[in-house]
Amino acid sequence: MGGGDLVELAKRRGFFFGSNGAYGGTAGFYTFGPQGAALKRNVEDAWRDRFTIKEGNREIEAPTVMPEPVFEASGHLEGFDDMLIACPECDSSHRADHLVEDATDVEDAEALPGEEVEALIADAEIPCPTCGASLSGVPVESFNLMFATDIGPGDAQPGYLRPETAQGIFVEFPRLKEYARGNLPFGITQIGPAYRNEISPRGGLLRLREFTQAELEQFIDPETDDPPLDRVADVEVTLYPATEQEADDGDYVETTIGAAVEDRIIGSPWVGYYLGVAKRWYDRIGVDMDRFRFRQHLPGERAHYATDCWDAESEVDGDWIEIAGFAYRGDYDLSKHDEYGDDSFTVFKRYDEPKTVERASVDPDMATLGPEFGADAAAVAEALETLAARDPNAFDAATVTVEVGEGDAAETYEVESEVANFSIEEVTESGEHITPHVVEPSFGIGRTVQTLLAHAYRTDEVDGEERTYLALEPGIAPRDVAVFPLVTNDDRLVTLADRVASDLREAGFSVAYDDSGSIGRRYRRQDEVGTPFCLTVDRDGIEGDGPETVTLRERDSAVQVRVPVPALVDEVATLREDGDFAALRERHELVETDVETA
Amino acid sequence: MGGGDLVELAKRRGFFFGSNGAYGGTAGFYTFGPQGAALKRNVEDAWRDRFTIKEGNREIEAPTVMPEPVFEASGHLEGFDDMLIACPECDSSHRADHLVEDATDVEDAEALPGEEVEALIADAEIPCPTCGASLSGVPVESFNLMFATDIGPGDAQPGYLRPETAQGIFVEFPRLKEYARGNLPFGITQIGPAYRNEISPRGGLLRLREFTQAELEQFIDPETDDPPLDRVADVEVTLYPATEQEADDGDYVETTIGAAVEDRIIGSPWVGYYLGVAKRWYDRIGVDMDRFRFRQHLPGERAHYATDCWDAESEVDGDWIEIAGFAYRGDYDLSKHDEYGDDSFTVFKRYDEPKTVERASVDPDMATLGPEFGADAAAVAEALETLAARDPNAFDAATVTVEVGEGDAAETYEVESEVANFSIEEVTESGEHITPHVVEPSFGIGRTVQTLLAHAYRTDEVDGEERTYLALEPGIAPRDVAVFPLVTNDDRLVTLADRVASDLREAGFSVAYDDSGSIGRRYRRQDEVGTPFCLTVDRDGIEGDGPETVTLRERDSAVQVRVPVPALVDEVATLREDGDFAALRERHELVETDVETA
Repeated sequence: MGGGDLVELAKRRGFFFGSNGAYGGTAGFYTFGPQGAALKRNVEDAWRDRFTIKEGNREIEAPTVMPEPVFEASGHLEGFDDMLIACPECDSSHRADHLVEDATDVEDAEALPGEEVEALIADAEIPCPTCGASLSGVPVESFNLMFATDIGPGDAQPGYLRPETAQGIFVEFPRLKEYARGNLPFGITQIGPAYRNEISPRGGLLRLREFTQAELEQFIDPETDDPPLDRVADVEVTLYPATEQEADDGDYVETTIGAAVEDRIIGSPWVGYYLGVAKRWYDRIGVDMDRFRFRQHLPGERAHYATDCWDAESEVDGDWIEIAGFAYRGDYDLSKHDEYGDDSFTVFKRYDEPKTVERASVDPDMATLGPEFGADAAAVAEALETLAARDPNAFDAATVTVEVGEGDAAETYEVESEVANFSIEEVTESGEHITPHVVEPSFGIGRTVQTLLAHAYRTDEVDGEERTYLALEPGIAPRDVAVFPLVTNDDRLVTLADRVASDLREAGFSVAYDDSGSIGRRYRRQDEVGTPFCLTVDRDGIEGDGPETVTLRERDSAVQVRVPVPALVDEVATLREDGDFAALRERHELVETDVETA
Repeated sequence: MGGGDLVELAKRRGFFFGSNGAYGGTAGFYTFGPQGAALKRNVEDAWRDRFTIKEGNREIEAPTVMPEPVFEASGHLEGFDDMLIACPECDSSHRADHLVEDATDVEDAEALPGEEVEALIADAEIPCPTCGASLSGVPVESFNLMFATDIGPGDAQPGYLRPETAQGIFVEFPRLKEYARGNLPFGITQIGPAYRNEISPRGGLLRLREFTQAELEQFIDPETDDPPLDRVADVEVTLYPATEQEADDGDYVETTIGAAVEDRIIGSPWVGYYLGVAKRWYDRIGVDMDRFRFRQHLPGERAHYATDCWDAESEVDGDWIEIAGFAYRGDYDLSKHDEYGDDSFTVFKRYDEPKTVERASVDPDMATLGPEFGADAAAVAEALETLAARDPNAFDAATVTVEVGEGDAAETYEVESEVANFSIEEVTESGEHITPHVVEPSFGIGRTVQTLLAHAYRTDEVDGEERTYLALEPGIAPRDVAVFPLVTNDDRLVTLADRVASDLREAGFSVAYDDSGSIGRRYRRQDEVGTPFCLTVDRDGIEGDGPETVTLRERDSAVQVRVPVPALVDEVATLREDGDFAALRERHELVETDVETA
């Protein structure tokens, strides 16, 4: 399939299209039309069912605007940059690293320092892609990808649109741990918008400035918490480890999750667990498993704190695109917020048995320290306490030396040990405060939608005519079922069609109703939006003895069977559940059409 | 109920809490915890089911960031302001109109010009509420409530966080009308975040800087499209019309939607229709109908283009708060975008019969105009065309006068009529382009959540102990059901409890599982988050003949019945559907407890 066909279909049939077309369009922003919004919501619901409800995790919803201190802590303020080069002639902006990658054989220009990229642009004499002017000597700047705004009026504080939903979870950890009653492991999920002010957005849903993420932050005690790996041990996966990517004759590794964790191809069992859950989920919602792989990050790709990272990738239009990332992030996120924030981002880990430990302490005699050290006396006392904790043996000597103040203002003082009133006590501790580690599966919802459409796009021939259809899974397709009265000039057909549609809606199905144009055109319309089943109310169905019937047509085979109306709701429910049209065919009378049936 | 109790419960039990507490908090931003996010989602799903699916409307999802030209057209750039006064001493910002309303008997200071508000502040010697400094003579400024940002890097265009979801619908009308195949009426819905950079946010979910709206834009042909008013004609409503609000002895009008529309209390039948649908919906999701009314906007309150506006209001903590607005907006929105945007925001309305109309036209002789008017010849020809359409009779005279150019550059020319080749033709027109009118029901989701919690909050006494519970409706409450093993030291109980929980989850229920603490404490915890039914697996249920059983406890009455495990999924489904615990009691054995049963 050419990507252009899908983009055209997506626009024409109401899946998605570039926003603000009447105002010339706004690069990087897409609107989901009625079909796309329904498909997207079905994907989100399926994700929620799998990664929140079935996993026993908890979902929250945090604001999209967050204040600056959050991103000082997270590192986004400092490091969430792309390389910008602005053409001095036409003022257009470009990703400097992309220009270099497109024009030279440098593969990972993003990892290079800005000056080096400048030099490469000058050496290769790369022109501005918009106007052709020379970019030699033009500085490469760091451009922060967060959308900035001001919260409040005159006394405003700087704020940013969150670059990932995750920060809305991390920052509330002090409260979330209370809801978990302080027990690890627990997982928090969130589905919602995230923002990146891309220098040069790409087409379709691939690199947007506003997009939807579904993220899961799994908080664990790295010493004791293991995932339920046996649930996914036998899931077969196609892995593309870093070593294979770097090898000359590197290849995929076809294995199972269980074996891959055991063989240490996947370093973290938690990451392995979620790769297994994700693989099954992608398969179920309709991603083509022949165009799907897990690719490990190369050492240069991953953040310094992340020890094991894998991307779920799907093939779309001949390219592999990242549709989810799975990272073992260690204690990085919570440690940073613990350092920058006012609250505690640790949990209290209770020992199985209380432990008795020796603890050194001092009780400095201030009546002596005061006269001796004057204004520094309190600081000296504090320094003695610190020293006692760090090096209790120091107090064995007659005097100890402490340093007070910092830098140029530092003073070194000698104190008689006995003034410190040093002692060692035995204390019983019931536990300790630990910083949980984080395992983060992070999904791009728009890219998943794009993948589903690309993998579902089919053309074939029915009744001698070429047709386009989307083989979307029941339950994921925007509509569950469509209902047509064969003709509109027979009230009996219209009345029954209305009743059938209304009964199905009442039973919770998403129903399309269409009474305009030939029946063939109506089938084609539903084929193009991927509606898996169409019900037609015809004269045969209301005449003769027995219950009323309708024809039920399956999208992919275009085969029709005749189903009694009283059985409809149950049959459609079964089809949405298991999609097993072959079983339904067995139970009902086949309708003769021009379509060849196997 | 004191609002403080609810706010405390909301925080402690994970409904909602102020965001970014670890960084000192950010006024105007709230995070929904696990219970609140589930409750909010249930409200959104119920809204979608009612206002999108059951009404046959279509839902879309548009970006939250939109470019400046959209808000030039919508009027938000110019007019979406509040009155700001900044204290010269402490730099704190305040709503000038609120200061005046709090300190004087002026009721609607927002409607006054800034200078008048300045004068009132000086006259009443209103001090800064933060530091007490005098605000006399401090200028009152207009502060635009949109969050501003920049889209893209150097060649950035200004953008704003949308102040309402509606603009994401209006701006895409040219495409949306295609999906409706050009047929009116049709309705488009959207649920999502909207933003207002409030000068002084209020507590709780009442006046936030980021909030969730559910909006429906109903596009109609005002000449021909009527709502299906008979569906809601008999819905009883409490109305508070503008005339009653302004009268000295004004009172509520208790009536039905049908009568209110017929009596012209409600001006627009479409507004009346959606008031009826909304009333039923609020009742179903659990808003207390004794603390609910529809209040009409006073003439000064509504926008100049809106002809009939009503708010749905609920009573919370003794105040009436707006939880939805219903406005007849005429053609304002689409006309503005038609004027400012490049695409057409009209639909083609086909006549029942083609109409023959007379149309004046000119075919100016350029061979004459060219030499005579030189560079202005083309403009003269165009002016002749415009004149023919506007005033055909002008061409009866021997010469006509046209004006070319604007302002100082305007030139008046006299042209001989026969050079214009004026004629009147009969043309057949199959229809005309009309600008649809908009009826907008707009719901605040957070305020609905706040209302549901306030109206569900109860205290009573059970087993001699005071308890707090939330009488949330089944299907709206965060969890459908909770499952407890009575004790954890009996594997048989734990195994059965696990199976019961897992079967219920598989059947699509949201299940809480709790095995810690006394059974009484577990009931109390679920009472506080409004879980309507609790299932306890006890020894009686696994011993003896017959199928295994569990006790099922209803939240509000605290009455328990014993239900066979094989019947559980169906019984819980029935309860979620109709909430009829009394009927269930008839079918099953009552469990003796200390709770008095009626």
